[in-house]
Amino acid sequence: MSEIKKVVLAYSGGLDTSAIVPWLKENYDCEVVAFVADVGQGEEELVGVEEKALASGASECHIVDLKEEMVSDYIYPTLKTGAIYEGTYLLGTSMARPIIAKAQVEIARKVGADALAHGCTGKGNDQVRFESCFSALAPDLKVIAPWREWDLSSRESLLDYLAERDIPCAASATKIYSRDANAWHISHEGGELEDPWNQPSDQVWTWTTAPEQAPDKPEFVAVSVEKGQIVAVNGERYSPYKCLIELNKLAAPHGVGRVDILENRLVGMKSRGCYETPGGTVMMAALQAIDELVLDKASRKWKEALSSEFAHLVYDGRWFTPLKDSVLAGAEALSEVATGEVILKMYKGQVAAVQKQSVNSLYSEDFATFGEDDVYDQSHAEGFIRLFSLSSRIAALNAKAK
Amino acid sequence: MSEIKKVVLAYSGGLDTSAIVPWLKENYDCEVVAFVADVGQGEEELVGVEEKALASGASECHIVDLKEEMVSDYIYPTLKTGAIYEGTYLLGTSMARPIIAKAQVEIARKVGADALAHGCTGKGNDQVRFESCFSALAPDLKVIAPWREWDLSSRESLLDYLAERDIPCAASATKIYSRDANAWHISHEGGELEDPWNQPSDQVWTWTTAPEQAPDKPEFVAVSVEKGQIVAVNGERYSPYKCLIELNKLAAPHGVGRVDILENRLVGMKSRGCYETPGGTVMMAALQAIDELVLDKASRKWKEALSSEFAHLVYDGRWFTPLKDSVLAGAEALSEVATGEVILKMYKGQVAAVQKQSVNSLYSEDFATFGEDDVYDQSHAEGFIRLFSLSSRIAALNAKAK
Amino acid sequence: MSEIKKVVLAYSGGLDTSAIVPWLKENYDCEVVAFVADVGQGEEELVGVEEKALASGASECHIVDLKEEMVSDYIYPTLKTGAIYEGTYLLGTSMARPIIAKAQVEIARKVGADALAHGCTGKGNDQVRFESCFSALAPDLKVIAPWREWDLSSRESLLDYLAERDIPCAASATKIYSRDANAWHISHEGGELEDPWNQPSDQVWTWTTAPEQAPDKPEFVAVSVEKGQIVAVNGERYSPYKCLIELNKLAAPHGVGRVDILENRLVGMKSRGCYETPGGTVMMAALQAIDELVLDKASRKWKEALSSEFAHLVYDGRWFTPLKDSVLAGAEALSEVATGEVILKMYKGQVAAVQKQSVNSLYSEDFATFGEDDVYDQSHAEGFIRLFSLSSRIAALNAKAK
Amino acid sequence: MSEIKKVVLAYSGGLDTSAIVPWLKENYDCEVVAFVADVGQGEEELVGVEEKALASGASECHIVDLKEEMVSDYIYPTLKTGAIYEGTYLLGTSMARPIIAKAQVEIARKVGADALAHGCTGKGNDQVRFESCFSALAPDLKVIAPWREWDLSSRESLLDYLAERDIPCAASATKIYSRDANAWHISHEGGELEDPWNQPSDQVWTWTTAPEQAPDKPEFVAVSVEKGQIVAVNGERYSPYKCLIELNKLAAPHGVGRVDILENRLVGMKSRGCYETPGGTVMMAALQAIDELVLDKASRKWKEALSSEFAHLVYDGRWFTPLKDSVLAGAEALSEVATGEVILKMYKGQVAAVQKQSVNSLYSEDFATFGEDDVYDQSHAEGFIRLFSLSSRIAALNAKAK
Repeated sequence: MSEIKKVVLAYSGGLDTSAIVPWLKENYDCEVVAFVADVGQGEEELVGVEEKALASGASECHIVDLKEEMVSDYIYPTLKTGAIYEGTYLLGTSMARPIIAKAQVEIARKVGADALAHGCTGKGNDQVRFESCFSALAPDLKVIAPWREWDLSSRESLLDYLAERDIPCAASATKIYSRDANAWHISHEGGELEDPWNQPSDQVWTWTTAPEQAPDKPEFVAVSVEKGQIVAVNGERYSPYKCLIELNKLAAPHGVGRVDILENRLVGMKSRGCYETPGGTVMMAALQAIDELVLDKASRKWKEALSSEFAHLVYDGRWFTPLKDSVLAGAEALSEVATGEVILKMYKGQVAAVQKQSVNSLYSEDFATFGEDDVYDQSHAEGFIRLFSLSSRIAALNAKAK
Repeated sequence: MSEIKKVVLAYSGGLDTSAIVPWLKENYDCEVVAFVADVGQGEEELVGVEEKALASGASECHIVDLKEEMVSDYIYPTLKTGAIYEGTYLLGTSMARPIIAKAQVEIARKVGADALAHGCTGKGNDQVRFESCFSALAPDLKVIAPWREWDLSSRESLLDYLAERDIPCAASATKIYSRDANAWHISHEGGELEDPWNQPSDQVWTWTTAPEQAPDKPEFVAVSVEKGQIVAVNGERYSPYKCLIELNKLAAPHGVGRVDILENRLVGMKSRGCYETPGGTVMMAALQAIDELVLDKASRKWKEALSSEFAHLVYDGRWFTPLKDSVLAGAEALSEVATGEVILKMYKGQVAAVQKQSVNSLYSEDFATFGEDDVYDQSHAEGFIRLFSLSSRIAALNAKAK
Repeated sequence: MSEIKKVVLAYSGGLDTSAIVPWLKENYDCEVVAFVADVGQGEEELVGVEEKALASGASECHIVDLKEEMVSDYIYPTLKTGAIYEGTYLLGTSMARPIIAKAQVEIARKVGADALAHGCTGKGNDQVRFESCFSALAPDLKVIAPWREWDLSSRESLLDYLAERDIPCAASATKIYSRDANAWHISHEGGELEDPWNQPSDQVWTWTTAPEQAPDKPEFVAVSVEKGQIVAVNGERYSPYKCLIELNKLAAPHGVGRVDILENRLVGMKSRGCYETPGGTVMMAALQAIDELVLDKASRKWKEALSSEFAHLVYDGRWFTPLKDSVLAGAEALSEVATGEVILKMYKGQVAAVQKQSVNSLYSEDFATFGEDDVYDQSHAEGFIRLFSLSSRIAALNAKAK
Repeated sequence: MSEIKKVVLAYSGGLDTSAIVPWLKENYDCEVVAFVADVGQGEEELVGVEEKALASGASECHIVDLKEEMVSDYIYPTLKTGAIYEGTYLLGTSMARPIIAKAQVEIARKVGADALAHGCTGKGNDQVRFESCFSALAPDLKVIAPWREWDLSSRESLLDYLAERDIPCAASATKIYSRDANAWHISHEGGELEDPWNQPSDQVWTWTTAPEQAPDKPEFVAVSVEKGQIVAVNGERYSPYKCLIELNKLAAPHGVGRVDILENRLVGMKSRGCYETPGGTVMMAALQAIDELVLDKASRKWKEALSSEFAHLVYDGRWFTPLKDSVLAGAEALSEVATGEVILKMYKGQVAAVQKQSVNSLYSEDFATFGEDDVYDQSHAEGFIRLFSLSSRIAALNAKAK
């Protein structure tokens, strides 16, 4: 437990990482540099965070604004793949981990650290995501995961630990839910959610309005898409991050983007999570609407394979891998034509694309309808069907002949 | 255009098939036997249908009740696979075609027919589905698809054709939407829907209440699942078909199950369809909730591949193929553990599973949470992560060494 | 059958296309421009081909050398995906079709033609491949497929047709096998092969030495690979086409690259084909060897999906589609690290990589063997296994508890 | 390190497990029961094994003949899926692990043991396979993996350990290669193989004749297949195990079934392995030949997905999982029609199916060839092609219109 001189800790200002600072110093006899990633978790979590870090004993505190980069380089690429984990989860925490890990490594390089630390528990996905990214980006740096080492196993013991060292901490001894927030989503675990036979209570949700309390009138929003990226909201062009912020503002009051699922963690167990992803849910619906217009049947089927593969690899923390590069390249190729406009209706917890158009649309009223056209001769269908079903016919004839 | 003596026509009583009866007799000089499949399209479509058929010139009319069989042998198996076409369409028309084709072939054998006919247009999927099934079940029977042969290309011309022959028909010259209904769903095409930039008007929807008009209070329904099959609703055991009917009754007033999509037809073009699948949407949500409890991560990922493959094969009319048998066998194996109870909340157009439990649940509060347990030692995580990310580490070390 | 003024015919100089020239002129009253693609089918097929075309009645004859472009832009990309159709067929004919179609369209544009014609039969894959490419590249041009129109259904009738018109043709009335050759492969169909219970006779094979007649000593060849492309043979750098030629020269005498399969045609039936692909088989083996060194487990599994998808899409003539772009982009991403050297042993009909190395190798003697190392701590394995098998453990514990 | 009373050890009689017996007794103060699985590794490994076990200190030794069960319940099912790991490895070691683990658990239940032990190293796949199976079959039993615990890290130290305890052992201090043998295959690792730039020397191979030394005349063998299972060899019906033995006898002298690969281990590193699988390679070729006859295009493509998935799950030790049940059920459905006869040619290291027939063949000379037939009308092809390529045409027309 020695030979580490300087460690960069992914620091949040919460109870856990507040205790980790002194614990690292005491147990590794090393300097601790706090690193705070601003991924849009909210001002309240950032105000005074540097002071807190220093008060805990950190030698320095680096706050890095990752908001635009996270949305443009991590979230938007993921959206292009259509990835949704286990059919429901929009990967809000998963997508944030690689960029945080990357920025943490950059700080470590800058300050000449020889180790990295995080405050993830030993039962979750995040430890795997962080450390898998560290493996890819900084295989030479040591990794310290205090939750897997210490025997402080309750909020009380953490508070005692801080009190003994006169480190101020505003945290309370009881906290029902464990939450993770960024610009894209907020997740909720714990409390009554631990029994899947319990409905989430009202206190679970912190961002979106309950559908029952949402406005009685639907609201419509126009979204512009260019090559698989949302570029404008209601006719106003924004940066990727700003698009997300705008859509969050519009969708949250309508209760859009709540999900409540039991998911398979990478570490082999299941967990219950409630997620709020208001703007992201609108984005997904808009991109799906464009796909409906521009992708042919074989491409959409293939994209289902890309989506499934990408969802798992992002969830599993495999961001900095050749697999990710490959699946993403496949999705980006399909996104070349994903350009158009979508009007979505938000109402009482749901969002639906109600109008859609694209310069690359493969839909044509002329072809699809009853009347004659130059492109499609109905008599072609007979030949198509005969060949399409030929192997069935041959098999059936064989069976009869036997 | 000869050598056919007796043809069995899939007859609906609508304008198209009313005209097809005399057309077949005139153009093939053959006897026409009408076959009406009762797949739950509604009493109003069945009342007087035999009289209509005979009035059109059919020699016989066979009405076959396929409702229970359709739900238990076609819909329930499909549900086990989780198939949703292009992410949205619950395959309501697609699943009905194979059973109708099969029953039609059985009638043909019974009456000694040498041909089969249907009223599907030459631009749609249904012709492919019907004829692919015919290929597999009765490769020796001729198939006649009048829409690909005749030059009656409008409702007016069909009405004229009937009027010239003094065949009574209540159909009107104008019909905005083309619809297909059965116990599972109703589909709507045509009219203003032909422009995807148009929202569906209120007249499109015929079954479910508009979310805006739905009750202001959510309603909850309890669904029991055994081995991937819905067996009870609100504690009452029903046959598969009856379960569906019960759920339809409960879900339709809440506006559950509306979708509005642009889909890729098998014949290479896109079409716009609006679908109402109230009870089916609840069933899907219930089964997904059970999967969340009972399937491990690798199994759920694999099931995504099964779902995608099955959705396409059902959509494409490949029901009576080895491919279907294979994918379904895979899904049935996974369904062995899909047993449990789900409470779902229906509100203003949406349904969500809010409580779920299963005797086969892999979720355990003990394992998932913070505290210690016998099964999961947090220190195991380090080893897991090291090996899970080992190839990234090796690649990174190699890159550094270069 | 009119309104066509000028047609560009994919002309080979063989019996079929010799007859198609006059047939097109007579039946479409149009000018016929012959287009000959040089894809490495051999000098003997190109000598005098222009004279033949003009003698048949073509107004012009364009011979286009596509050899380098075919190998670099069609074969090498396909090799990067690892595509092998139905586990065995190296896609020799399939890969040539899109480039021929593309060059044919270019000639059509140059000469101002309004139609394209080919000599493919109505039962094969090539008609689909050609016409699918035409659809993508020149949807405005008409397509004429004489084999689907005329009633000349035997070699005798074609010879008679030419004789009646005094068109000289050296073709004989009997030809046992139907063959297709290019720089990559030669295929053989027909004759005794039509019964899969017959072994191919010696006359089937025209390129490679029979393994039994091949040298009794193995020969070794060194192949250099850069980013998934073969760039040198035995230390000598060559263009893609030249690499192939060199490897053909080395491998054919050893009988390398013969396969004899029953394959599923796209048009729904099966056919028996014997293929010779000497150099290509060596290339495949070399690239597979590099993949063994440089791709991690998840990437290789994913590549299996890419290979399967690409094989089918190339076989099916979907070259100029978004699907192809997507799958290829995925494969190219994986090829970024596919650089190295392979020594292969050719002996009596087989080739095997016996030595391999790569700067991007993920293999390390240090890690794989028994001794200690810094990267892999054996105690990590316990944690890995516990989490890897956790869901099995939980399921088993649950089952016991019941 | 206590509380274990009786442990069942998977015992081989080799140096490692000979030392494990006393080590377990000393370190866990427990009774050790030796369990020897006869999976066809050869008589020489079984002769005297009980005496050796008892001499090492085991209280009992159970030798269980698993040969027939292994072939019929583990190998034959795997063959039905077509699984080949990373394109080359026939899974010989992987398939044996689950049955050994299962039999070991059965012995443990019989003797009332509370723990299981194995002699696998901490860097390999086998520890994961064994322990994953233990997790599924006996989650209540402790698992001891001495190689991950002790500090005996060389053959010398093991020999010393035994000598100090007066336990006789015929093992020598040096052993170049690490091998694993059963009725299906033998694997070789270590020695010069640890550098992939080295060719395997002649001493590596222990079973098959070198192709260069194999007979100069090919030999033919007839294999009968029923529902995806080999049931007869050269007209003689045998049990699954006996079929394998017969084919081994025939194929090994011809050098059939050698492969030399670098593979990705589940634990994240690569390793070099040489494998000899003579009879198995013939079996695979025979089953592939039947598939060529009986599976339609869509089914074969789907089977590629099944094969890939099954190969990975077997390699990864996931035998006793729902995933395995699902993929296998899918493959078994496809095997229903896999019945027929294949004649294979063995010559100088290779095997090829040269004649094949099946009552379920979808191939028909009538359909595939030039002449007319009732089933396939060449004019159908036009319609097929038009619809098959319709989306390309529409996309191209759109692009032109822009």
